[in-house]
Amino acid sequence: MAYIDTKNDQPGILELLAFRPEMGGAMSQLAQTLLRGPSSLTPVERELIAAVTSHENNCFFCHNSHAAAANALADDADFIAKALKDPQAAGVSKKVQSLLVIARHVAKSGKNVTAALIDDARAAGASDEEIHDGVLVAAAFCMFNRYVDGLGARTPQNPADYVPMGQMLATVGYLPR
Amino acid sequence: MAYIDTKNDQPGILELLAFRPEMGGAMSQLAQTLLRGPSSLTPVERELIAAVTSHENNCFFCHNSHAAAANALADDADFIAKALKDPQAAGVSKKVQSLLVIARHVAKSGKNVTAALIDDARAAGASDEEIHDGVLVAAAFCMFNRYVDGLGARTPQNPADYVPMGQMLATVGYLPR
Repeated sequence: MAYIDTKNDQPGILELLAFRPEMGGAMSQLAQTLLRGPSSLTPVERELIAAVTSHENNCFFCHNSHAAAANALADDADFIAKALKDPQAAGVSKKVQSLLVIARHVAKSGKNVTAALIDDARAAGASDEEIHDGVLVAAAFCMFNRYVDGLGARTPQNPADYVPMGQMLATVGYLPR
Repeated sequence: MAYIDTKNDQPGILELLAFRPEMGGAMSQLAQTLLRGPSSLTPVERELIAAVTSHENNCFFCHNSHAAAANALADDADFIAKALKDPQAAGVSKKVQSLLVIARHVAKSGKNVTAALIDDARAAGASDEEIHDGVLVAAAFCMFNRYVDGLGARTPQNPADYVPMGQMLATVGYLPR
């Protein structure tokens, strides 16, 4: 149970979004737009950035749910585990690897991102839109992670519990049905 | 100029929101809902949390723009400067002071928020909704701050430049007119 009485028994961020539906709706719309809206980064690539940022922020719920979403979208149950260990071996492009480096800097502070890191991403093939989208997805997960952990949201402890959640996020997305 | 070519000359986050209008719309809607939507925290109190979080994250653009918004809403050009120095003397309630303590912890990590800090806020009169809204506003500014600084958005250096921006935010809000 969260630090506050949310009056529902949903897991993680869902518990919080349901507690304040108007704010929850704006948060869900943002997630849908950032992770599934038009972008030349694929949904798998954006979920990878989300999962890596959440891992960097040590947010168990967000890391496991977005890892499960990425795994479902990639049709590989071990994709995120492999990408965290060795992105090159996991088939992550140089372009997205450079965006993951930036995401890890964003997780510490926006000010940690340097012109040199942006130049590296551009040299690896990232467009201005892709650099933008990568930074914004990482920044957004710095919000989602703090929202979930700052309110102590209910967090299933078994990674297997996240598999159906990931399948739902892969097929339905982030907007309430 | 930002690290990316946004093809417009607007300042700060506006430059970025205009570059990717669909994502920008979702971001603006979130800001409007969190800072002006229904909440028993007043817009001044929510802008104060936004300004303090941005100050904690050392984001010059967000701190100055939301300080200017809070000052305009409070009809006191020095409100935020006074509240940062001595919130009690600035007339900030014990309840909101407790939410500012939580916001500063959220800025470091969601995991830094403890049950004891939540208990303190409750003892100071904060409801579950207010604790929720305070944590979410602080978390959201950890996103906005990283978005602005992570992409090196154009940042006016003179705090006076933010006064008209604050008046606009106080009267019109966050949705494009």
